[in-house]
Amino acid sequence: MSPTSAPSLVSDTTLDDLPLRDDLRGHVPYGAPQLEVSVRLNTNENSHDVPPQVVEAVVAAIAEQVPHLNRYPDREADALRDALAAFLRAQPASHGVPLTRGNVWAANGSNEVLQQLLQAFGGPGRTAVGFTPSYSMHPIITETSGTAWVDGKRGDGFSLDPFDVAQQVGVVGEHGADVVFLTSPNNPTGTALPLDVVEAAYEATRGIVIVDEAYAEFARPLNAGGTPSAITLLPGRPRLVVTRTMSKAFAFAGTRVGYLAADPAVVDALRLVRLPYHLSSLTQAAATAALAHADVLLATVEDTKAQRDRLVAAMPTLGLFALPSDANFVLVGGFDDAPAAWKALLAHGVLVRDVGIPGHLRITAGTEAETDAVLAALAEVVAQAEVAAHPEDDQDDDGEGQRA
Amino acid sequence: MSPTSAPSLVSDTTLDDLPLRDDLRGHVPYGAPQLEVSVRLNTNENSHDVPPQVVEAVVAAIAEQVPHLNRYPDREADALRDALAAFLRAQPASHGVPLTRGNVWAANGSNEVLQQLLQAFGGPGRTAVGFTPSYSMHPIITETSGTAWVDGKRGDGFSLDPFDVAQQVGVVGEHGADVVFLTSPNNPTGTALPLDVVEAAYEATRGIVIVDEAYAEFARPLNAGGTPSAITLLPGRPRLVVTRTMSKAFAFAGTRVGYLAADPAVVDALRLVRLPYHLSSLTQAAATAALAHADVLLATVEDTKAQRDRLVAAMPTLGLFALPSDANFVLVGGFDDAPAAWKALLAHGVLVRDVGIPGHLRITAGTEAETDAVLAALAEVVAQAEVAAHPEDDQDDDGEGQRA
Repeated sequence: MSPTSAPSLVSDTTLDDLPLRDDLRGHVPYGAPQLEVSVRLNTNENSHDVPPQVVEAVVAAIAEQVPHLNRYPDREADALRDALAAFLRAQPASHGVPLTRGNVWAANGSNEVLQQLLQAFGGPGRTAVGFTPSYSMHPIITETSGTAWVDGKRGDGFSLDPFDVAQQVGVVGEHGADVVFLTSPNNPTGTALPLDVVEAAYEATRGIVIVDEAYAEFARPLNAGGTPSAITLLPGRPRLVVTRTMSKAFAFAGTRVGYLAADPAVVDALRLVRLPYHLSSLTQAAATAALAHADVLLATVEDTKAQRDRLVAAMPTLGLFALPSDANFVLVGGFDDAPAAWKALLAHGVLVRDVGIPGHLRITAGTEAETDAVLAALAEVVAQAEVAAHPEDDQDDDGEGQRA
Repeated sequence: MSPTSAPSLVSDTTLDDLPLRDDLRGHVPYGAPQLEVSVRLNTNENSHDVPPQVVEAVVAAIAEQVPHLNRYPDREADALRDALAAFLRAQPASHGVPLTRGNVWAANGSNEVLQQLLQAFGGPGRTAVGFTPSYSMHPIITETSGTAWVDGKRGDGFSLDPFDVAQQVGVVGEHGADVVFLTSPNNPTGTALPLDVVEAAYEATRGIVIVDEAYAEFARPLNAGGTPSAITLLPGRPRLVVTRTMSKAFAFAGTRVGYLAADPAVVDALRLVRLPYHLSSLTQAAATAALAHADVLLATVEDTKAQRDRLVAAMPTLGLFALPSDANFVLVGGFDDAPAAWKALLAHGVLVRDVGIPGHLRITAGTEAETDAVLAALAEVVAQAEVAAHPEDDQDDDGEGQRA
């Protein structure tokens, strides 16, 4: 470039021209489409707006902070961690485990909590095991940290059993996997994990065992097929970590608050790798204020569970099937061509998630009206697919397509 | 543990009992003390509260978001990146380089921007070079990412010259360092970096060259010893990255917004490693609203520069010396015992920073009243140190301590 030419930053440079890490070449960014459609049921968000009472409290708490944003936030986020510990202690599924601030750590979404865990306990020469299909960020965060990823296998119906998990976790490395990812309920299947699987994984390795409970608040009650939280297993297990988020049940995805419960030594480890002042004053104030109204925020959870159960129950009437779900979404199977069905639903203004499992789509449970919309759209899409696959069925009721 | 004992999470486990990454063992967390004292001049914060006009705009922008926090934020932060690009374009020190959204990336503080750069361009088997003393997070972020760190050397008065830098950068690895950290102005010395040093580093390697300009807005004017921004070097240099922050000049440390300007291909690379939805809706709204009032927010910069210049000018009268500063802080030398002086200043209610350079302390330039306070405290501390070191000086004016 001549020194007299006008400076310009329109460049022909591509990613291939840059000294990118070799193992990232050819990767594509994580990206659920962010499309403007009327019914968005693709990212397991809570469809309910934040209730006015909570909005008022959050805005007031933030307004108090804004004049002083010239100062760095509390690096330890003490008030927020107190509030999170109190919330967890009060949950029936925690069985009274006496968690306090020292057991809790928070970050910008549970993604950042997981990243810090990998930075502290993974890294070059270490290996993490997770069980596919599961949350797609687990392998991405693992590999970004330089940790090797091993794709564990599930049994029939995406199940996991203690013996099988212990074997898969135990054969990795010298002392078992360095990091194990378990999920309960699992995304995208919605299925809860029996606690004996967690215990078996813990015994099979000397590494860190993470139970990702992002959707725990949507679990069915203990007396109706529900599973207790892995928080109940924390006493006496300093290598066990339970992660949670405010993005789902709390209707607070836009605030980006994830957290964990564990032995205080795990929290000490994360202080070595966390970026200083990682949680903004705005985030800390908003989340702490929201937790003071946890009951109001969580009131929408029962609505969401009712819509989830409605989705599960409706699928057989559409010629589809759904796995039992303890989350705010349902994995639906039985599509002849899931990508085509995804596209057809989008044409009806309904955005769901193609998670890459042949024949399956994942549908978030939203409001009653959204359930109405997705069920109506599904009925049309299934019928159209049927006609397209079997165009002469209307003159021929033997159930076999003429041109199959 | 017996299954009937009360669960407890008070544990004797320590960090040593956990499977921590070997290279983190013995590390201590980054931690400038967060103490409640009347004069806090230790973390280069802006001492001026956010102006009321900006507070109003920020709170209004946030209040609009809060009801919809149930939804995830814009993953691309488009509005914020537009506002940041417009801000940079308008800066005289940018010389009209036509930056747009595609050239800009933002994250939770420039720490997270730097972490993402290391995750994309560093990693196991790669090496970063920085020139000590400099921002203490550079080696920490580097090593957390699994990248090797090489401590480059500075010349007299902490200076860097093009030939020397090119040599140190060029001898690392097969094609020079994979990542180079330069800083202008440098923390903790306050000194700006001539652009020919940046050019020389760029030519000496095929790696990424980062110029950390966290304090750029405090630079002296170009006609008074100031240096243009490295943004002027971006056209034609796709491996060059300039990082900035809203924490300092913008008085927005509590919001945690750092950003970079670079070739769009660099931004593409960061999308591969960034955590999805890493920037909250609150952060995006607050920062975008604040940038619409950049002139009001930056009005305090001239005040701060005046206080900085006053600090620099006062040091010789105290028997101390200061490096010329283009930042909002001053590195002061000439202490017999810097840790003792730090402690004595704290006893006077003044918190400054001991950056670990023998005989030196770093002092943030704050308000006029804070400068009054730190200069008064320094005068007393220096006098007391003089008396302690030379207790009979008051009877003996030969200037040699009797018990030295």
